[in-house]
Amino acid sequence: MTKKIQIGQVMIGGGTPVRIQSMTTTHTSDISATIEQIRRLEQAGCEIVRVAVRDERDAKSIKILKENCTIPLVADIHFSARLAVSAVENGADKIRINPGNIGKETDLRLVADCVRAHGIPVRVGSNSGSIAADFEQKLGRSANALVESALHNVSLLEKYGVYSIVISAKASSVPLTVAAYRLLAEKTQYPLHIGVTEAGTSESGVVKSSIGIGALLLAGIGDTIRVSLTEDPVREIDTAKRILRACGREQNFIDVISCPTCGRCEWDCMRLAQKIETRTFGIQQRLKVAVMGCVVNGPGEAKDCDVGIAGGKDKCVLFRHGQPVGIVAAEQAEEALLKAIFECLGKDEKGRQ
Amino acid sequence: MTKKIQIGQVMIGGGTPVRIQSMTTTHTSDISATIEQIRRLEQAGCEIVRVAVRDERDAKSIKILKENCTIPLVADIHFSARLAVSAVENGADKIRINPGNIGKETDLRLVADCVRAHGIPVRVGSNSGSIAADFEQKLGRSANALVESALHNVSLLEKYGVYSIVISAKASSVPLTVAAYRLLAEKTQYPLHIGVTEAGTSESGVVKSSIGIGALLLAGIGDTIRVSLTEDPVREIDTAKRILRACGREQNFIDVISCPTCGRCEWDCMRLAQKIETRTFGIQQRLKVAVMGCVVNGPGEAKDCDVGIAGGKDKCVLFRHGQPVGIVAAEQAEEALLKAIFECLGKDEKGRQ
Repeated sequence: MTKKIQIGQVMIGGGTPVRIQSMTTTHTSDISATIEQIRRLEQAGCEIVRVAVRDERDAKSIKILKENCTIPLVADIHFSARLAVSAVENGADKIRINPGNIGKETDLRLVADCVRAHGIPVRVGSNSGSIAADFEQKLGRSANALVESALHNVSLLEKYGVYSIVISAKASSVPLTVAAYRLLAEKTQYPLHIGVTEAGTSESGVVKSSIGIGALLLAGIGDTIRVSLTEDPVREIDTAKRILRACGREQNFIDVISCPTCGRCEWDCMRLAQKIETRTFGIQQRLKVAVMGCVVNGPGEAKDCDVGIAGGKDKCVLFRHGQPVGIVAAEQAEEALLKAIFECLGKDEKGRQ
Repeated sequence: MTKKIQIGQVMIGGGTPVRIQSMTTTHTSDISATIEQIRRLEQAGCEIVRVAVRDERDAKSIKILKENCTIPLVADIHFSARLAVSAVENGADKIRINPGNIGKETDLRLVADCVRAHGIPVRVGSNSGSIAADFEQKLGRSANALVESALHNVSLLEKYGVYSIVISAKASSVPLTVAAYRLLAEKTQYPLHIGVTEAGTSESGVVKSSIGIGALLLAGIGDTIRVSLTEDPVREIDTAKRILRACGREQNFIDVISCPTCGRCEWDCMRLAQKIETRTFGIQQRLKVAVMGCVVNGPGEAKDCDVGIAGGKDKCVLFRHGQPVGIVAAEQAEEALLKAIFECLGKDEKGRQ
């Protein structure tokens, strides 16, 4: 069990639910654009948001952003202890720094004193793009180098009395990321921020992040996750939610089990599955729905679900709680299935509670 | 190491590369539609394709399909030993059956004699939608039930002298799928066909398949993979390729490392990354390309790549084999980066070899 750390009103680690986070792509001092993006992220399910602080204007913006958003704000600062202190004084709920580039030892001490005084945590860690030179020279660009570099950063903070720490050790390679976090989890009790860094565009980035984060979560590793996509960050939140759901870490959602269809399928199962999935993605209630093309695996999956439909020729069998409850024409399948779903959820036919 | 099995001209298991497979969604006897879909799958990178055989017309179609396609064909048959035999006699390179539903013991023997005579392998296994009733009653819908049910099917084939076998144990739940295959890998030497069944539409299906297949591949488990999406099956092949690439199982591709961008980014890194990724997805040569927004991780990642670009304000630094080789204006970044990529690949400026 990792240590429990508080970020604003959100707890991470120590067995609390895995938190979803993202980072804004706006200039932080462009207040209206940043507020708009943070609100969209919040609405999508983001629980912690990070903003880049490049200058004093960015640091001062945190104060206004905090007044306009509800989720905790993390300030991401490089190369300047002064800006880190300013971000904290302006209300950042956590800072993400790299002790190796923040300045001299006196600068790091200044930042450490400041976060202790304000009682906020710090995220440190390593990234395959910025492993400290001595670790890279000694250990190569390896899992060991990522972990030793991250733990060295931790020790620098601990030296100045900071113990409210979250650690990351991200690589752009999935096997390297997974190996690094497995090693890190053996060596530390601090909560882990997991993710594959620079994972790429939505196509390959979703696959890389799903494998890296998913494999770690299935192994019981990870307290907060960041899906990095070269995309609108809202897309990161959707992917993060799907990862948590697929790993059994989030239960309150509509799980749509649907078959890929094959030459046996005699009706438009594919279109129905896509419609049901889109229509129910945002509902935070627990329900398992099967949309199955034929009789091979159809009835078996449908029986295991709260609501299910399995197609035959022109006609489909509707299931509720494991029992066949009726036969509907394929063209009425959507209506019948949605009605059954909403009835199970205690909603009316338009999906209202 | 698993046993090596031959399917047509393709070997699976025993340390050979992990093979990508899919299944057609057309009616198999609709010859022109099926040939068209198989050719699209082949072109996308599919190495083994499965077709559903529901009746004698489907079985007879295999002969014509084989004359028009180059990759091995697997016939998927349920409920009929006669059709299984017909599929094999018409040239199927492998069959996928469920011994539990193929008929009586004499029927199974008939099929076993036929595959042995033709020297083709059989895929058997379990699926959370169709675990044999006695195993489900005794063990619940568990990893153990999936594995015992799959191994029981194997023993039925072995009883009649069939030892050229590929096994699957798919669940629609990712953790259950991963647990089942981990157990199966401990208990058998036959090659494993891995995948998450009924994974759903492209959105959640890509995430579920990536985690399930990816976690297993990272653990060294899996000889052939099927991504199941309620989608055009070509999409399955793209996802399968991305999974193999992300897990380090496929090396000959252009790996585009790109950052998610943040408030530090002063140029349109996102659009460039997406363009480069789309432009280079199909190239089967090994190259690592970094498209990075700023100076925090940019130069570090770019240095580790064959070609890289890291942005500043209006201007970007171009890297080749770890060395900065020039500064280009942001609006010339695409042209300069593509030129550098194609030069490294030994192609001309239009990407021709």
